[in-house]
Amino acid sequence: MATFGFVEYDQASPEVKAVYDDIIAVRKTDSINNFWKAIAHDPATLKRTWESIKQIMAPGALDPLTKELIYIAVSVTNGCEYCTASHTASARNKGMTGAMFSELLAVIGMANETNRLSTGYQVEVDQQFKTPVQP
Amino acid sequence: MATFGFVEYDQASPEVKAVYDDIIAVRKTDSINNFWKAIAHDPATLKRTWESIKQIMAPGALDPLTKELIYIAVSVTNGCEYCTASHTASARNKGMTGAMFSELLAVIGMANETNRLSTGYQVEVDQQFKTPVQP
Amino acid sequence: MATFGFVEYDQASPEVKAVYDDIIAVRKTDSINNFWKAIAHDPATLKRTWESIKQIMAPGALDPLTKELIYIAVSVTNGCEYCTASHTASARNKGMTGAMFSELLAVIGMANETNRLSTGYQVEVDQQFKTPVQP
Amino acid sequence: MATFGFVEYDQASPEVKAVYDDIIAVRKTDSINNFWKAIAHDPATLKRTWESIKQIMAPGALDPLTKELIYIAVSVTNGCEYCTASHTASARNKGMTGAMFSELLAVIGMANETNRLSTGYQVEVDQQFKTPVQP
Amino acid sequence: MATFGFVEYDQASPEVKAVYDDIIAVRKTDSINNFWKAIAHDPATLKRTWESIKQIMAPGALDPLTKELIYIAVSVTNGCEYCTASHTASARNKGMTGAMFSELLAVIGMANETNRLSTGYQVEVDQQFKTPVQP
Amino acid sequence: MATFGFVEYDQASPEVKAVYDDIIAVRKTDSINNFWKAIAHDPATLKRTWESIKQIMAPGALDPLTKELIYIAVSVTNGCEYCTASHTASARNKGMTGAMFSELLAVIGMANETNRLSTGYQVEVDQQFKTPVQP
Repeated sequence: MATFGFVEYDQASPEVKAVYDDIIAVRKTDSINNFWKAIAHDPATLKRTWESIKQIMAPGALDPLTKELIYIAVSVTNGCEYCTASHTASARNKGMTGAMFSELLAVIGMANETNRLSTGYQVEVDQQFKTPVQP
Repeated sequence: MATFGFVEYDQASPEVKAVYDDIIAVRKTDSINNFWKAIAHDPATLKRTWESIKQIMAPGALDPLTKELIYIAVSVTNGCEYCTASHTASARNKGMTGAMFSELLAVIGMANETNRLSTGYQVEVDQQFKTPVQP
Repeated sequence: MATFGFVEYDQASPEVKAVYDDIIAVRKTDSINNFWKAIAHDPATLKRTWESIKQIMAPGALDPLTKELIYIAVSVTNGCEYCTASHTASARNKGMTGAMFSELLAVIGMANETNRLSTGYQVEVDQQFKTPVQP
Repeated sequence: MATFGFVEYDQASPEVKAVYDDIIAVRKTDSINNFWKAIAHDPATLKRTWESIKQIMAPGALDPLTKELIYIAVSVTNGCEYCTASHTASARNKGMTGAMFSELLAVIGMANETNRLSTGYQVEVDQQFKTPVQP
Repeated sequence: MATFGFVEYDQASPEVKAVYDDIIAVRKTDSINNFWKAIAHDPATLKRTWESIKQIMAPGALDPLTKELIYIAVSVTNGCEYCTASHTASARNKGMTGAMFSELLAVIGMANETNRLSTGYQVEVDQQFKTPVQP
Repeated sequence: MATFGFVEYDQASPEVKAVYDDIIAVRKTDSINNFWKAIAHDPATLKRTWESIKQIMAPGALDPLTKELIYIAVSVTNGCEYCTASHTASARNKGMTGAMFSELLAVIGMANETNRLSTGYQVEVDQQFKTPVQP
């Protein structure tokens, strides 16, 4: 349950409605996810978050599906149930197959395992990994 | 500093050497990273970890570079310095450009931000995200 | 569901009851939260935790509401649902407004984002941040 | 060591220089921290992050020092060395005393402890914490 | 709810059934936990995970109950509800008493507290902890 | 580097010296670790932390070595370098062999992997794990 409940479209201020309308247009959907309806209690954060998401998740050097896979990797590692569920749905909408999802989780699981092995064995960073390179 | 120092190639047991040789062959390199030399104190873990990595990071439904990006997303989120450094180097070797790296980190940063917003606002999972689908 | 259920007031040992009575007196409440009723299976931990909380959360160089905001920041970052819910309620009882809560979450989200950016870019600590100062 | 080194002021593009100039003006400083010089390889992220930080950390319902304390709480909980060091320095510049810092860390430590106790005992959220309230 | 639902024994492929049969034989149980039925959508991960678990959790230098306690420590620290619940049940089946569970959680809580204190005070590692020793 | 440097024995207040003396006596050592010398800037936290550690890490239903292994599991999972190094040293002093250390890290790594798999597959808790039992 969101702490302050949700800001539904009909009760939203014009400022919030403008963001909702943009979400609906960009996402080609007719419903607003709970996440947006919860943070809408803070219109500044709603607007900033949506504008950032729109910019960051747009096609660029990485394609949108790859970006969703990265989003899932972070959400699973943080143990965020909402984010895992919603971005798994987003990734599917963008073409993630069952085989891709399984491989994604296998990599996430493995990375979490070796992260702890390298921390536990207190492995120092190899010299060649420390040299900055040209972008 | 690895707790027990490193198992260098020359002092390695035949069992460990066999894994090192496979790493060198598969990775087309002539040096073994500190990570492997540290966990080699436990030959069973060395072997299991290498075999799993080889299987998981191979081309499949996801390409090897995408898998490295996912590995970085996990490592950064866990705050693992060694893993961040080594997989950033691996990703570069597999073709990650500066622009891809920057977009990757932008997504990782954003995902960590919205993960906390959704936890903090205690957002409940939308009904449509709960329905299991066919793989 | 607490693993071992809850220790309700009526079934509590005198040792546990004494802590419960102190919680009721200090917090000016007539009910004991589930957290205390769960850890009461371990009276030593119940007593030590309550005594520590009472000492740490008391007014000092930081006021009690500021301390609750910090508690929420930790709980959200750890993804602890129970702690996020209970300390959000505590903070409200101590005067947190909706505007304060929104700003709190905006800072928490932002901090989680820049934490990952600085880890991902492997930023070394600036020299001027390393110099110890007088308390 | 930043993966791609730093973007120093003199080599920066006009777009990056404009952000650096604003940081210098707003922060009343004459040097740019390593964090900004590292993320400047991605001018879009540099600009977005700085604009967000400026908006979020400005005085509002919470004062700037309280926001720095919250930033430290997140950074310590995430184990982010850079962020802990830099925001501890920022907090001091905004008036954090040694006594405030000690209390801050005591709360952070305690919150991390009780977060784990409530997870380990699998404590379910009290009914009264679930009811949404008016902002 | 598992994203793709569960793979029940009756609908399982021969490959998955073979793993299920081994789980039933080794664990001396007649039911398969949800965890296995969820990851069975990825037979390679199911097999690799089960084989690794079987090898790692077997009696060795550490006894199986101690290993379960360690598993709980990790799961609680990661805030993983499923893993905390299932390994707490496993530990009980292997002889964990209420007193052991309470002490386990007290150590987990304390470790999380001092982890943050040492990060927050930016404590550098003592020289004597850096010297590698013989295994 | 500790933010405020260290409180060395010779400059310590009588209150801090009393804790240092007790650490030296209980631990049968003649030096104080950096951790204590850093948190000694806050004598109340120094005293409370030491008293709690002494109580929690004492022999009970779990032996002291098992408790150190649990401490390492938490510290590695949190990515706390200082705590991993210092408690690995403590565990060795209490009899942890190289074989035990390797098995410990194997379990920690595996647990981190399966934690993420169960989160990623959004596995719901089995009904039988939800029933509270008698301590």
